[in-house]
Amino acid sequence: MLHGHQTWVFANRPTIISSSVVGGPFEAQGPLADDFDILHGDLWLGQDSYEKAERKLLEEACENAIEKAGLKKEDIQFFLSGDLMNQIVSSSFAARTLALPYLGLFGACSTSMESLALGALLIESKAAEKVICGAVSHNAAAEKQFRYPNEYGAQKPDTAQWTVTAAGVGLLSSHGEGPKVTSATIGRVVDMGMTDPFNMGAAMAPAAVDTITAHLRDLRISAREYDLIATGDLGKVGHKIAADLFAKHDIDIPREIFTDCGLLIYSGEQPVFSGGSGCGCSAAVTYGHILNRMKRGELKKILIVATGALLSPLSYQQKESIPCIAHAVSIEYHR
Amino acid sequence: MLHGHQTWVFANRPTIISSSVVGGPFEAQGPLADDFDILHGDLWLGQDSYEKAERKLLEEACENAIEKAGLKKEDIQFFLSGDLMNQIVSSSFAARTLALPYLGLFGACSTSMESLALGALLIESKAAEKVICGAVSHNAAAEKQFRYPNEYGAQKPDTAQWTVTAAGVGLLSSHGEGPKVTSATIGRVVDMGMTDPFNMGAAMAPAAVDTITAHLRDLRISAREYDLIATGDLGKVGHKIAADLFAKHDIDIPREIFTDCGLLIYSGEQPVFSGGSGCGCSAAVTYGHILNRMKRGELKKILIVATGALLSPLSYQQKESIPCIAHAVSIEYHR
Repeated sequence: MLHGHQTWVFANRPTIISSSVVGGPFEAQGPLADDFDILHGDLWLGQDSYEKAERKLLEEACENAIEKAGLKKEDIQFFLSGDLMNQIVSSSFAARTLALPYLGLFGACSTSMESLALGALLIESKAAEKVICGAVSHNAAAEKQFRYPNEYGAQKPDTAQWTVTAAGVGLLSSHGEGPKVTSATIGRVVDMGMTDPFNMGAAMAPAAVDTITAHLRDLRISAREYDLIATGDLGKVGHKIAADLFAKHDIDIPREIFTDCGLLIYSGEQPVFSGGSGCGCSAAVTYGHILNRMKRGELKKILIVATGALLSPLSYQQKESIPCIAHAVSIEYHR
Repeated sequence: MLHGHQTWVFANRPTIISSSVVGGPFEAQGPLADDFDILHGDLWLGQDSYEKAERKLLEEACENAIEKAGLKKEDIQFFLSGDLMNQIVSSSFAARTLALPYLGLFGACSTSMESLALGALLIESKAAEKVICGAVSHNAAAEKQFRYPNEYGAQKPDTAQWTVTAAGVGLLSSHGEGPKVTSATIGRVVDMGMTDPFNMGAAMAPAAVDTITAHLRDLRISAREYDLIATGDLGKVGHKIAADLFAKHDIDIPREIFTDCGLLIYSGEQPVFSGGSGCGCSAAVTYGHILNRMKRGELKKILIVATGALLSPLSYQQKESIPCIAHAVSIEYHR
């Protein structure tokens, strides 16, 4: 299964038989609104804290994905998930509700593809027949934990990103119809010494480039194999840096296939600074919009490269730079 | 590979070709001091924060395990680790130092066996030839984050536990000599409505019982198959509750083989309340003391059941109960 240094090839082709994305009010105003299964009109989801609302997003996405597949919870063996909250409480409390054997993961915003990569490995190796993989983030819960209370009205620079309020999950199966997970490249931590938490895109871009380069090298393929290569949430600033780094290193990534989930999820009219972020960003865009495009036959072979900034508020306060990582998963669908 | 609902059987028997445990001054005074590879005389390890000291414990354990195996970093494909710090910064920053493809995990104190279970799965499925799995905790870093600053002198009840300052890692290989990882049972979240973070042992005991019961059921074996069944860190209080629960449900777990890492690591003279805890507790006791006993031929077949309390300070403040989980890994060594 291991190809080269860090890439798994899934010969049994684990299938995403169902997926679900649940979003908040700000996502409902974006260009991908139609790709959400459930959209909420406020950030609270009927809960009494943003953290509980975040958990609810994930629970709804899981329940919806299981229902869409015509399955019951008991048909699923494992739940793999993570989020940005301290001690990933959104995922762990959702795992309590789901009552499934649970593997908690943390890779910041790369968690979406970390969970899909590991979920596919479980299916591929017959360690499971069906798993649910997901990730979630909530704008207000993240702002509260990582930055300033919204009520302070603290200003942000244009390089900042807007944490997406969304959960995205995929239900993987060893059998069935749907997009196939064909390979995964697990990233190394890359740290270029950036220290500005309001410019995560720039910090994460080299990690995305490192993982995409490793993926192409390990599989001995060209980027032109793919109809779409989407990074997780580099935003405008990070996307440009990644494109420049590829050009500098003479790696051919055609501009027309190279995009970023943080650029896709909101419109230019929405005040999101450099773009969307949060583990719900790449999860929602992938499991909603991009899989829908595959199902319509517009894309046959894609690579999602979820990027994560592995800092904590404390590591920042202790003047550490920002270690970053990216995990890539390829998906194919030939109908 | 999947047996029953939630247990993986590793037919290829991934081998722990090397392991390493690094501890602090309090562990140096305990009965297992001789089982540590490196012991530090103070909690700082020459760093300027406890968090950096925690990372250093993990880095040293990884480097030592690689050196003991006569390998170089480049021979290892993946690093799987987690810890208790927000955004698992100890593991992520150690992953930066190691420069290996990295899978960040979070299962609170169950992380030690979550990483070993997934690491063994990677080897078993040929997704890797060599991986390092580990976990770390640091008493002062954990107190600072989860409880009160030590300087407050806050009193604790007898049901509280003492977070272990230690890292424990195992180097797994598809070939070679050493203890074999034979199976793993991934736990479900169990929440009995306990809300007291100073009595985690009681909260976690039902999760340990649930996972052990699932393990025996999935493999259709009796607990007497094992020479030792060690829970992660239930401490005195939780260990007694677990034993009582087994008795109540008529599950035969012979008293003489049933122990707890949180009971083993400190002596009765040390003021640790109910016992040790933290993901470094089960990691250090397993990768040090217990593997050493296997190597001496005293134990042939063991089951380690690492338990985790998946709360956060915020979930506690929001009056949530404590969801708990336990992951079990069996190890055999017939020399």
